[in-house]
Amino acid sequence: MKKLSFLLAVLFLVPASSLFSQKDDSLQIRKIFTEALVHGESYSNLKGLCAIGHRLSGSTGAAKAVDYTYGVMKKMGLDTVWKQECMVPHWDRGAKETARILASGKTSKALDVRICALGGSVATPAAGITGEVIEVHSIKQLDTLGEAKIKGKIVFFNRAFDASQIFTFNAYGGAVDQRWAGPSAAAKYGAIATICRSMTTRIDEYPHTGSMHYDTAYAKVPCCAICTKDAEELSSRLKSGAVKFWFKMSCQTLPDEKSYNVIGEIRGSVHPEKVIVIGGHLDAWDLGDGAQDDGAGCVQSMEVLRLIKATGYKPRYTIRAVMFMNEENGGRGGTKYAEEAKRKNETHIAAIESDAGGFSPRGFGLDMGADQKKQVQSWKPLFIPYGIYDFESGHGGSDIGPLKDNGVPLIGLSPDPQRYFDFHHTAIDKIDAVNQRELELGGAGMAALVYLLDKNW
Amino acid sequence: MKKLSFLLAVLFLVPASSLFSQKDDSLQIRKIFTEALVHGESYSNLKGLCAIGHRLSGSTGAAKAVDYTYGVMKKMGLDTVWKQECMVPHWDRGAKETARILASGKTSKALDVRICALGGSVATPAAGITGEVIEVHSIKQLDTLGEAKIKGKIVFFNRAFDASQIFTFNAYGGAVDQRWAGPSAAAKYGAIATICRSMTTRIDEYPHTGSMHYDTAYAKVPCCAICTKDAEELSSRLKSGAVKFWFKMSCQTLPDEKSYNVIGEIRGSVHPEKVIVIGGHLDAWDLGDGAQDDGAGCVQSMEVLRLIKATGYKPRYTIRAVMFMNEENGGRGGTKYAEEAKRKNETHIAAIESDAGGFSPRGFGLDMGADQKKQVQSWKPLFIPYGIYDFESGHGGSDIGPLKDNGVPLIGLSPDPQRYFDFHHTAIDKIDAVNQRELELGGAGMAALVYLLDKNW
Repeated sequence: MKKLSFLLAVLFLVPASSLFSQKDDSLQIRKIFTEALVHGESYSNLKGLCAIGHRLSGSTGAAKAVDYTYGVMKKMGLDTVWKQECMVPHWDRGAKETARILASGKTSKALDVRICALGGSVATPAAGITGEVIEVHSIKQLDTLGEAKIKGKIVFFNRAFDASQIFTFNAYGGAVDQRWAGPSAAAKYGAIATICRSMTTRIDEYPHTGSMHYDTAYAKVPCCAICTKDAEELSSRLKSGAVKFWFKMSCQTLPDEKSYNVIGEIRGSVHPEKVIVIGGHLDAWDLGDGAQDDGAGCVQSMEVLRLIKATGYKPRYTIRAVMFMNEENGGRGGTKYAEEAKRKNETHIAAIESDAGGFSPRGFGLDMGADQKKQVQSWKPLFIPYGIYDFESGHGGSDIGPLKDNGVPLIGLSPDPQRYFDFHHTAIDKIDAVNQRELELGGAGMAALVYLLDKNW
Repeated sequence: MKKLSFLLAVLFLVPASSLFSQKDDSLQIRKIFTEALVHGESYSNLKGLCAIGHRLSGSTGAAKAVDYTYGVMKKMGLDTVWKQECMVPHWDRGAKETARILASGKTSKALDVRICALGGSVATPAAGITGEVIEVHSIKQLDTLGEAKIKGKIVFFNRAFDASQIFTFNAYGGAVDQRWAGPSAAAKYGAIATICRSMTTRIDEYPHTGSMHYDTAYAKVPCCAICTKDAEELSSRLKSGAVKFWFKMSCQTLPDEKSYNVIGEIRGSVHPEKVIVIGGHLDAWDLGDGAQDDGAGCVQSMEVLRLIKATGYKPRYTIRAVMFMNEENGGRGGTKYAEEAKRKNETHIAAIESDAGGFSPRGFGLDMGADQKKQVQSWKPLFIPYGIYDFESGHGGSDIGPLKDNGVPLIGLSPDPQRYFDFHHTAIDKIDAVNQRELELGGAGMAALVYLLDKNW
């Protein structure tokens, strides 16, 4: 073996020391993955987190999740565990929404359909709101239709996900403007409410909630998401003539609440003042339990610290896990964290986020300088045995995004993307949606990358 | 673009024609994937297949599955669809098995546990069989214990899957001797029956069946698999003292039945006498509906033919899909197919099998000569956009295995392996275990490879 290494070193003009170091690295990474697969705690921690119920910012569930993750990290015997205060918006869904396609003509019977309020929406009047539906496939189309066609109506945004996208997040990116900007774009022309097709490639019964944004220049109209099965039905009825729709929602925006990012760290042995941060977001939409989005990222981030300790690695830099609060409807936790880092003049070596689900890890998105990128890509052979091969595409993450202004290299864990939007922001984003091995592999992948960054940067 | 291609061609000494051809290939492959994701029929065909119920060789379900897949391919407008007769074993489970850990001492109450007969097992006596349990972790351990410790007892094989394996099929390979060879190895020393820990990393309630083999030199003892949760309980009770176990099974082996491989093909436009074969196996264990094992491989193989037609590609060689019968407990379909191919002096360019589940495709196992391997590996960049990156590990497949003697290069689709043994040979291997997009991507990956083989070999 030694002889072969020497030969390779000469042939490829690589210092032999670096070959041996590559071997050490591969052994340490193997240790990390074995520990995660055999004794991993991501899954059991996720079970505990999901048992709390939903964790939307400002809710009692979110407060319990702060205590829960604080408790988990306290028990891990980290050097420091603390809570970083931040004020968060507090939107509450109220009673379960009800909706109906009204009967039209002789043949078309009334049909109860499955909707949910979009996060941030105003309520309908107490008796609900009724209007004729106009279906559109883009915001631009509203400009063509104008007030003449839209005023007094309920606008139904029904542009489907582009199923041909391999990376489903691209399909999401290509459709989500309807949810985010649709309500105000429709209100601009006098729409009284909006319905948005759920953000998924599947045809199923689960409405997908998610954030929306009111442009203060226009009326705040109630806006909901409809499950894709019922979106198809509504669209089909509209082909035969006018359709009226009724829905009722009692959601409201309450005063901001005090909340926290939850942070734990292992202090660096050489440069304690320099930080590698890993994180996910602790808040989650209120329909399910936020298992994939983003309980997975939280427990994986805590697991990175556990794996470092369990495998006996002494990091040079401080390794810090952050459960960011309020990614879903405000991003206040991420903003706060970056502000504090700047205020304290902290140096961040790198920031890694897991917020794309707890599926089999396939790569890392690299948002950094070309030289840094090249170096991270040179570690690819160390990850291939674990099915992690993609160091080209993707980006960092919403919560670590604000650190970019501080010049921090950002990295996003990129898991297999096929199933994410089956669960995203729905009632079925529960523990059953997560596979234990896939989840643990993601945490191990992050820990392996943290190890290499710590050693080499 | 042309200028750049020229420059690249000069720089890397690649003929410009090959660069342009690579671009054509990437366009054709994109067409295949888009067709599969937007109009794919694998999933709906799998729904139809699973609706039949189980398809164990010799069962009425298997006969219906032959008719069903024959019908699907007939409707596809292929050049030829036919059935290839083969005799298959016919083992029947009989009534649902029952089992109990008997009470022992004052504290340990009797407990009903979940077992299933291993495929091929003899029945217990009508009243069941009772014996003291002896736990072992390997077949070798039996030799150490000998007749003195084993005679008259029920041997409990409880070596767990090695969870640290990334490729779960390796963990299966490292444990399955207990199921296959355990019963006779125990009977050799006078054991009256065997219990085998289920073949999975999960701790759950589902016993996993699967084939076993009697060595005719020893008594045929009844043998069952126990779910991992109950295996853990049984093992735990054994730590406190002697434990008796009772179980009852009414399975039997009936006379061989006539059955079929189901075959469809598109005739080659240049070399109709030369064949590229793709396949999965049509039979499936009788506890679930064989959705992952191997309904997925069957519908993907049929889909390859549909994708070739739908994208307008005219293959040079004959492209043939085979639904092999009897992979699970005899492999008679695969043997028959290879025999017939030899008898007819057919030339097979390559054989591809999908029998590792309908999960996101990650690569292809290549069992072929070094030069051929090198060429297939050179196509890797064309697959990377679809998350298919691994052209190193894995093997062909059980059903195409006998073609190796005919000198045929063998290829196995290698999907993400993390979830396969959650479902394998259990009651939960049903349509819900399969994700539509993941399934369709696998079929598209195979079609893309068939396209490249057809063009280049």
